[in-house]
Amino acid sequence: MQISARNALKGTVKAVEPGAVNTEVILEIAPGVEVVAIITKESAEKLGVAVGKEVYAVVKSSDVMIAVE
Amino acid sequence: MQISARNALKGTVKAVEPGAVNTEVILEIAPGVEVVAIITKESAEKLGVAVGKEVYAVVKSSDVMIAVE
Amino acid sequence: MQISARNALKGTVKAVEPGAVNTEVILEIAPGVEVVAIITKESAEKLGVAVGKEVYAVVKSSDVMIAVE
Amino acid sequence: MQISARNALKGTVKAVEPGAVNTEVILEIAPGVEVVAIITKESAEKLGVAVGKEVYAVVKSSDVMIAVE
Amino acid sequence: MQISARNALKGTVKAVEPGAVNTEVILEIAPGVEVVAIITKESAEKLGVAVGKEVYAVVKSSDVMIAVE
Amino acid sequence: MQISARNALKGTVKAVEPGAVNTEVILEIAPGVEVVAIITKESAEKLGVAVGKEVYAVVKSSDVMIAVE
Repeated sequence: MQISARNALKGTVKAVEPGAVNTEVILEIAPGVEVVAIITKESAEKLGVAVGKEVYAVVKSSDVMIAVE
Repeated sequence: MQISARNALKGTVKAVEPGAVNTEVILEIAPGVEVVAIITKESAEKLGVAVGKEVYAVVKSSDVMIAVE
Repeated sequence: MQISARNALKGTVKAVEPGAVNTEVILEIAPGVEVVAIITKESAEKLGVAVGKEVYAVVKSSDVMIAVE
Repeated sequence: MQISARNALKGTVKAVEPGAVNTEVILEIAPGVEVVAIITKESAEKLGVAVGKEVYAVVKSSDVMIAVE
Repeated sequence: MQISARNALKGTVKAVEPGAVNTEVILEIAPGVEVVAIITKESAEKLGVAVGKEVYAVVKSSDVMIAVE
Repeated sequence: MQISARNALKGTVKAVEPGAVNTEVILEIAPGVEVVAIITKESAEKLGVAVGKEVYAVVKSSDVMIAVE
């Protein structure tokens, strides 16, 4: 399935922390570059998200802000 | 200023495409790893977003989805 | 590709209205039930979104609000 | 109250699952077509969300992505 | 209509700037406190958004970030 | 750090309610005008969010909807 979200960053799952409704997933998309995602607990289980698995971090371009120092 | 958004990915601006209300910004956050952001035209101008500039792609963890093949 | 977004509503494209940076897509997901999506112009072209095509409206559960009369 | 969100899909609540801060609500918007919403626990209680109740799933068009097979 | 979004800030429209697909609306919610919204052009016209009109800025609590200096 | 989000509303924290993964923060941005934010528990702790602290409610203009009575 192809999706309109412009960002699909390939990475490896480093940590998974489930909560009551949501689960926090940390993945490495490049050496030393980590992305944190919060998805529903049900989705994390359905997709089999586990440490070491290759997944994509998918983000709509309108959800990406730009900051400058 | 520190912000609660969990993802602040440092990168270099590769392209800037202004529209009527929004502007599309493409930045490289690691060799060969690009992120696309759509921000308002006014913000792009106020922050001085231009090709070659170092910026951060800021994304809330709840805006990051996970996909698997 | 499977994605963590909990809502993937199958429908048929009824109308496509391109803008400078974004494109508006209207699809019918059940008789008389329409959904409006705004995606980037580039994504609309890349996915070949056109009237009559079968597509999915994908929405994160945290982006769905509930209203009552 | 009328709202700028372009999508207001009428449906019936099928399930309600409260968590610590958030509550998951599943509603049927057409025969066999379900939508999952995650709203705050406080909102779910304030709006009296319960199985069998008629509600609207409200989604901004910019939060709807398009996917194709 | 009552909605699950936890923030409904009452204000007066100060400026309206239409674009191809989206329209920018600036409203004052307290003396010297302004909020900027980007909604679809169609919604702005349907709701009759115009300078001087009393409206609400509606924001989901999960879309509000916190920053500290 | 300057960010592209167009809304940065200064306020004082009135209440903090932690959950398993997320934390609810209520702040006053003008006399009698409150904003509710849900951020990750980790961010709330990292930023030292506590009652009485001066913070900013940061919201992208595309996440602000407009409603009329």
